[in-house]
Amino acid sequence: MAGETTITVVGNLTADPELRFTPSGAAVASFTVASTPRTLDRQSGEWKDGEALFLRCSIWRQAAENVAESLTRGSRVIVTGRLKQRSYETKEGEKRTVVELDVEEVGPSLRYANAKVNKVQRAGGGGGGGGGYGGGSSSGPADDPWGSAPPASSGGFADEPPF
Amino acid sequence: MAGETTITVVGNLTADPELRFTPSGAAVASFTVASTPRTLDRQSGEWKDGEALFLRCSIWRQAAENVAESLTRGSRVIVTGRLKQRSYETKEGEKRTVVELDVEEVGPSLRYANAKVNKVQRAGGGGGGGGGYGGGSSSGPADDPWGSAPPASSGGFADEPPF
Amino acid sequence: MAGETTITVVGNLTADPELRFTPSGAAVASFTVASTPRTLDRQSGEWKDGEALFLRCSIWRQAAENVAESLTRGSRVIVTGRLKQRSYETKEGEKRTVVELDVEEVGPSLRYANAKVNKVQRAGGGGGGGGGYGGGSSSGPADDPWGSAPPASSGGFADEPPF
Amino acid sequence: MAGETTITVVGNLTADPELRFTPSGAAVASFTVASTPRTLDRQSGEWKDGEALFLRCSIWRQAAENVAESLTRGSRVIVTGRLKQRSYETKEGEKRTVVELDVEEVGPSLRYANAKVNKVQRAGGGGGGGGGYGGGSSSGPADDPWGSAPPASSGGFADEPPF
Repeated sequence: MAGETTITVVGNLTADPELRFTPSGAAVASFTVASTPRTLDRQSGEWKDGEALFLRCSIWRQAAENVAESLTRGSRVIVTGRLKQRSYETKEGEKRTVVELDVEEVGPSLRYANAKVNKVQRAGGGGGGGGGYGGGSSSGPADDPWGSAPPASSGGFADEPPF
Repeated sequence: MAGETTITVVGNLTADPELRFTPSGAAVASFTVASTPRTLDRQSGEWKDGEALFLRCSIWRQAAENVAESLTRGSRVIVTGRLKQRSYETKEGEKRTVVELDVEEVGPSLRYANAKVNKVQRAGGGGGGGGGYGGGSSSGPADDPWGSAPPASSGGFADEPPF
Repeated sequence: MAGETTITVVGNLTADPELRFTPSGAAVASFTVASTPRTLDRQSGEWKDGEALFLRCSIWRQAAENVAESLTRGSRVIVTGRLKQRSYETKEGEKRTVVELDVEEVGPSLRYANAKVNKVQRAGGGGGGGGGYGGGSSSGPADDPWGSAPPASSGGFADEPPF
Repeated sequence: MAGETTITVVGNLTADPELRFTPSGAAVASFTVASTPRTLDRQSGEWKDGEALFLRCSIWRQAAENVAESLTRGSRVIVTGRLKQRSYETKEGEKRTVVELDVEEVGPSLRYANAKVNKVQRAGGGGGGGGGYGGGSSSGPADDPWGSAPPASSGGFADEPPF
């Protein structure tokens, strides 16, 4: 990809991640991160909370399962990925636009927590996009609505490291 | 500020910048940047346009006037700033949320263009916030040279959203 | 802070983190992240490793202890922070410059691993900067050389969330 | 590319850009950006300059010529690109490493200046990589030492916009 808009957000999960599976069996996890900036008031010398930024995030395949297993409501995370815009129509026929984060990497912040990390054995390929990574990105299954990922049907990539 | 979500976007202005002035005389320029990612199709070896990201941007004071003087519809720009969320209610009473960019720095891209750059003489202070910058951020009102926190109590700005 | 250069790096630890303590008792953890980009060769359609970027990172106080408890050689991490330059003289009197990362947040990547996250109880203040966070930054001990952190003696911050 | 470390730097050119040409005729411009952070001292309420970060930058082809035509010593710029590490040996046989920025986009900041922007007509292809962009990146000619760019010999790309 070229010309992408990448962004890093630090914040807390507003709820447990939701894990779903596409018809072809690829996992996708969705979650919302609330990031609250703080401003130093020069008069009082004190920090004040600013308005929170809420960003809807999604992540695919094995990483999605790892997210669902590791994070819960309130977890402080670091997320990096591509900022995307998606347009849709409401039932009333109104056009709406949402901004979302197509997650490239996410992890629990170690600022206020420690973590016991367990490497996950990835299944060796197989059908349906469940096993294979491709193209250095964990986003996008075979039926990737944003077309940003290599097709999961290129299953040969399952054996090679995506990075 | 701490805990902000900063972002850099490269894209083209969808229209000429709009320049307005607050009652106290501070300039604010608003514009929308369309950023279109490109994906390399592995089968065909060709680049394809992805869905564009449209981001509404605003910038304050002298920098706002510089933007209005320098950029036009179609200009390719580099913008860096803070991603913010703003909630409002429609006339019908529906709650809506928009994501916007509080610009810290913006400039015309030199990828396909050259530029004749002219340093602007800054007026020495004076009333109403028209004059003073200070090193670090062009956002924020008159008495906050770095613009990190528009104190609502600082007079004329109280009535209007800082971004 | 204003005008900082922030950066997010994803990569693997080249060795276990080193944990040290300042005379005043503040913990600091240092580690190096190796980040290897991959390029898609358009002729062959295959991904090739590029040259790795090695970035020396440091993080302070409780977060430093969390890092030392959670990460080991090879751990894949997401790190975000401020890029800094430091000049020093060799024993031979030569001037050298190194680029380092003053870590704001770090966590294990969930791309190939899951994690059991444990919130750490922060000690209530105490001497020497060991306990207190403040100001949304984990960098800088009590005698913070960059002045970016609130003095640890403002121990009152220990009880309140910095964000 | 995947797994790159991208960064945005705002600062001032320490000298006029240097423009050179590869044997095959591709232009490359090099320049150094000095970026100085500022810290708000909580005791005094005043801003203080931190230590500057100096980053060596290079940019290729038409954009290189645009840079050489538009920027001079002292110009305030916004630069975004990939952080790279390069190792070399001194005449004395010592191994050294430098961190550099492989520029993707650069432009003059409009914070303290306005600019008259002129779109550049690009020559249609021709030999030796002088004309052609490829792959959505302005970095790297045919003999690109980092291998990050598509070969300029794929001259057919000269006619199509890289973005």
